Amino acid sequence: MSHPHPELGSPPPLPEGGFRVTPLGGLGEIGRNMTVFEFDGRLLIVDCGVLFPEEEQPGIDLILPDFSSIRDRLDDIDGIVLTHGHEDHIGGVPYLLREKPDIPLIGSKLTLALIEAKLQEHRIRPYTLEVQEGHRERVGPFDCEFIAVNHSIPDALALAVRTPAGLVVHTGDFKMDQLPLDGRLTDLRAFSRLGEEGIDLLLSDSTNAEVPGFVPPERDISQVLRQVFAGAQKRIIVASFASHVHRIQQILDAAHEYGRRVAFVGRSMVRNMGIARDLGYLKIPAGLVVDVKALGDLPDDEVVLVCTGSQGEPMAALSRMANRDHQIRIVQGDTVILASSLIPGNENAVYRVINGLTRWGANVVHKGNAKVHVSGHASAGELLYFYNICQPSNLMPVHGEWRHLRANAELGALTGVPQDQVVIAEDGVVVDLIEGKAKIVGKVQAGYVYVDGLSVGDVTESALKDRRILGDEGIISVFVVVDSTTGKITGGPHIHSRGSGIDDADFSGVVPRIQEALDRSAQDGVTEVHQLQQLIRRNVGRWVSDNYRRRPMILPVVVEV
Amino acid sequence: MSHPHPELGSPPPLPEGGFRVTPLGGLGEIGRNMTVFEFDGRLLIVDCGVLFPEEEQPGIDLILPDFSSIRDRLDDIDGIVLTHGHEDHIGGVPYLLREKPDIPLIGSKLTLALIEAKLQEHRIRPYTLEVQEGHRERVGPFDCEFIAVNHSIPDALALAVRTPAGLVVHTGDFKMDQLPLDGRLTDLRAFSRLGEEGIDLLLSDSTNAEVPGFVPPERDISQVLRQVFAGAQKRIIVASFASHVHRIQQILDAAHEYGRRVAFVGRSMVRNMGIARDLGYLKIPAGLVVDVKALGDLPDDEVVLVCTGSQGEPMAALSRMANRDHQIRIVQGDTVILASSLIPGNENAVYRVINGLTRWGANVVHKGNAKVHVSGHASAGELLYFYNICQPSNLMPVHGEWRHLRANAELGALTGVPQDQVVIAEDGVVVDLIEGKAKIVGKVQAGYVYVDGLSVGDVTESALKDRRILGDEGIISVFVVVDSTTGKITGGPHIHSRGSGIDDADFSGVVPRIQEALDRSAQDGVTEVHQLQQLIRRNVGRWVSDNYRRRPMILPVVVEV
Repeated sequence: MSHPHPELGSPPPLPEGGFRVTPLGGLGEIGRNMTVFEFDGRLLIVDCGVLFPEEEQPGIDLILPDFSSIRDRLDDIDGIVLTHGHEDHIGGVPYLLREKPDIPLIGSKLTLALIEAKLQEHRIRPYTLEVQEGHRERVGPFDCEFIAVNHSIPDALALAVRTPAGLVVHTGDFKMDQLPLDGRLTDLRAFSRLGEEGIDLLLSDSTNAEVPGFVPPERDISQVLRQVFAGAQKRIIVASFASHVHRIQQILDAAHEYGRRVAFVGRSMVRNMGIARDLGYLKIPAGLVVDVKALGDLPDDEVVLVCTGSQGEPMAALSRMANRDHQIRIVQGDTVILASSLIPGNENAVYRVINGLTRWGANVVHKGNAKVHVSGHASAGELLYFYNICQPSNLMPVHGEWRHLRANAELGALTGVPQDQVVIAEDGVVVDLIEGKAKIVGKVQAGYVYVDGLSVGDVTESALKDRRILGDEGIISVFVVVDSTTGKITGGPHIHSRGSGIDDADFSGVVPRIQEALDRSAQDGVTEVHQLQQLIRRNVGRWVSDNYRRRPMILPVVVEV
Repeated sequence: MSHPHPELGSPPPLPEGGFRVTPLGGLGEIGRNMTVFEFDGRLLIVDCGVLFPEEEQPGIDLILPDFSSIRDRLDDIDGIVLTHGHEDHIGGVPYLLREKPDIPLIGSKLTLALIEAKLQEHRIRPYTLEVQEGHRERVGPFDCEFIAVNHSIPDALALAVRTPAGLVVHTGDFKMDQLPLDGRLTDLRAFSRLGEEGIDLLLSDSTNAEVPGFVPPERDISQVLRQVFAGAQKRIIVASFASHVHRIQQILDAAHEYGRRVAFVGRSMVRNMGIARDLGYLKIPAGLVVDVKALGDLPDDEVVLVCTGSQGEPMAALSRMANRDHQIRIVQGDTVILASSLIPGNENAVYRVINGLTRWGANVVHKGNAKVHVSGHASAGELLYFYNICQPSNLMPVHGEWRHLRANAELGALTGVPQDQVVIAEDGVVVDLIEGKAKIVGKVQAGYVYVDGLSVGDVTESALKDRRILGDEGIISVFVVVDSTTGKITGGPHIHSRGSGIDDADFSGVVPRIQEALDRSAQDGVTEVHQLQQLIRRNVGRWVSDNYRRRPMILPVVVEV
């Protein structure tokens, strides 16, 4: 298997007749999926998603792919294919369209409806091309075919691209539920056809490559939901993803069967379910769904609330219910169902919510104690089927952390893809398909771009490093006024702290030390502000370390008058 | 089931003949286990552990139980029973003994050896009483019997306490491996005997009460280890807990079988394995274990390293190997085994390490892809056996978050403990056993006490709140000198920021706003420093919010001259 070399340089120009693949996100992380295809000087983008920050990125709202490698070439982009409507595939689109609003968006009906709703909030009206499975569209030099795939949102598509360089297939996110709720299977006949034609390069979803076996059918959940509904004495509150139309459909069906009414709670849930209903993806029996205000008139055992917050997001309805900070007050006997995955990294937040709800007496049903969730991504067993059907010449695992990419690469090799034609790349690593062989040829910039408040990209790694120190240790600010000619203190030191755990009054102990140090340096004729600040930082730092064994940030400000 | 009422007041004095149980830690969290028993004016403490901080407690080293409810009564304490040698049961002892060093410690041989080694670092030499299973010791008015239990560390004990108020049993941490490596079973015969005598109150480990079924035997792991060892071409690096003697024993056995030498890496691993070997708990074939320096002379396929860092701790050897920041450089073909649990909350850190190791070409074997770990705590199936054997009159789940306590309570009720005699308490909630009935009677202070550097308890919730804001948003410090009589600016504003993502140069935009606001207030005759600071905070805050949609901490310092 080829691994990226840590010291890869810039890629050479793409040779004539070659096809270039540059992943700008999603290889090395779960999220911000974005791949750039290039042929004959033109670009086709597949997905443009966001990554949600973790504790390592404090205070950040969103993480985007770095567009800098294509920024000079925005005019070369013939379109953005969106494989499905999840945030990690469409969430970055508004930020790319800000730079050039007329790049056409290509996707299925539901996908386009979701991105259009999102773009409306950014006041962008996109050019769109609606496609569906079986369609074939020429986009610049890219001959695109769209194939139905099954995932945790309806209407997902894989993409096959034909150019003179060969046939390249990108799966998007997919799994292979053989009994999908909407009957829309991952189209293995189409993939067989493509395989027989000869897939030169397959880019394939790695998310569950480490998980052995097969994902159970979505419809298995309905039995579990029914059991929970049958046993519930009071209200039922279900938290799920606002995009999981099939999951919500099953909840609606169970509510209908057990004579309950349903209200949607939360902006994104109300909006998306509206879109899904209007487009015919969600079937709602007449009178089943009511406004949340109307629920107060119903007895508790006729009520279902469907809300977001299944990942423990602190501002979502469910967290606020757990903290008794929401109009819906959890009481003994309520049932709460978390019909969702637990995304790694969210464990603490989710368990905090579960503990809070339990403390108020709710019966909490979740992935950990009942089968109320199945994944949206193919497990190892499914991937083996898939590779045996596709038999690609070259395989490039996408969508995953290193451990997932590597596990996926191994599955490909097991099914007969030659070891040296399994390419493990990471974000920014450029892979060229030339004469039927995929090869790593260089690397472009593909770091994290942070959205924080209104700004995109202003918050840098160094600001984040400051935040981590501030967050762990707090800050001590030291203000001193010195005479500009003698360097002697004429005011201060004024010392204040936040988050260091040291009382402002206790700093009296370090004042003589600062004064002494500055006196000594004044005698040595030191008057340069920067040097004096360093001196203060060193002295205060040492004093704190000796007395408290801590390392807060020290912000010395010396003003000369 | 009785739940604590949120508005519980102070407990009444303990009535004569009553037995009081006050959990000071471990009920509502996994960690800092500590329970106070009281009878006839005397106290017996069971365990005194620490809790490891999460992201909600930035910069904190350790979290202790709050000793304030017993601080006035240190002379009443007849002893501290330590059920086993894990940090969450013994880690708080040095801090309690600092307040009164002569409280006797009671525990098994290994437990006392581990706490003595720890106390040595704190320069405390404790009074100890070594006990073992089957022993019966009178400690003040408490007639104590010790019962063997099986756990993820050798030599763990449960405690039965007889007083005229009845028979109270505390399980400590336990599971019921029916084929333990050392042959030391959880002594169900002893628990049967106690059950027949009549257990008035059972305090029982809740950690795995949500997990259905049974924990597989520890020895099952040896098959998996052998398979990994048989397939490994180069070095094998195993990360595990430094206290898991039986796990390490199995690694040593596998190394021996496959002709490899072993080196221990890391201070706690070297120390604990030394103690375990000296006391006979770890059997090391002659010549098997060598110093890490001697490994360089051996071929890669004869090497095993055993280290800590299985939870992704950034300073531990394993994390540093993943970052290529350790003398041991991971290369293609090395095998790394994480023979440990993944403690909830550590997922991000652990997967970061796994991805890092994988990126360098290591084959990483962990709980997620192989059966290299079994839990140390009884699952639901085991707890049912246990309750049917004990048949306690009253049950009080201990050691767990709310979801665990509640699940454990339900298991007890299922086996026939009357619903109203299952008491779900939380930290600080006082439970009295009076005439055979356990009842919640009040609440004492039992919040988190933070150890940060040298200080214990100085870092408060408010300092942590500051740290969270600082860590998410950064800080802007604004320094202004004003005339004390007129309130007019005579120096500054000097504005500096850390972590806000705003360049210091960009603050020129807010300077006129501050000047204007201060001029206006000077005209109104405002000269009070606090008011001027508020004014600055408000103006800068609004400017940042309008221009950046962020909310950094603002630290205004006004000095009057």
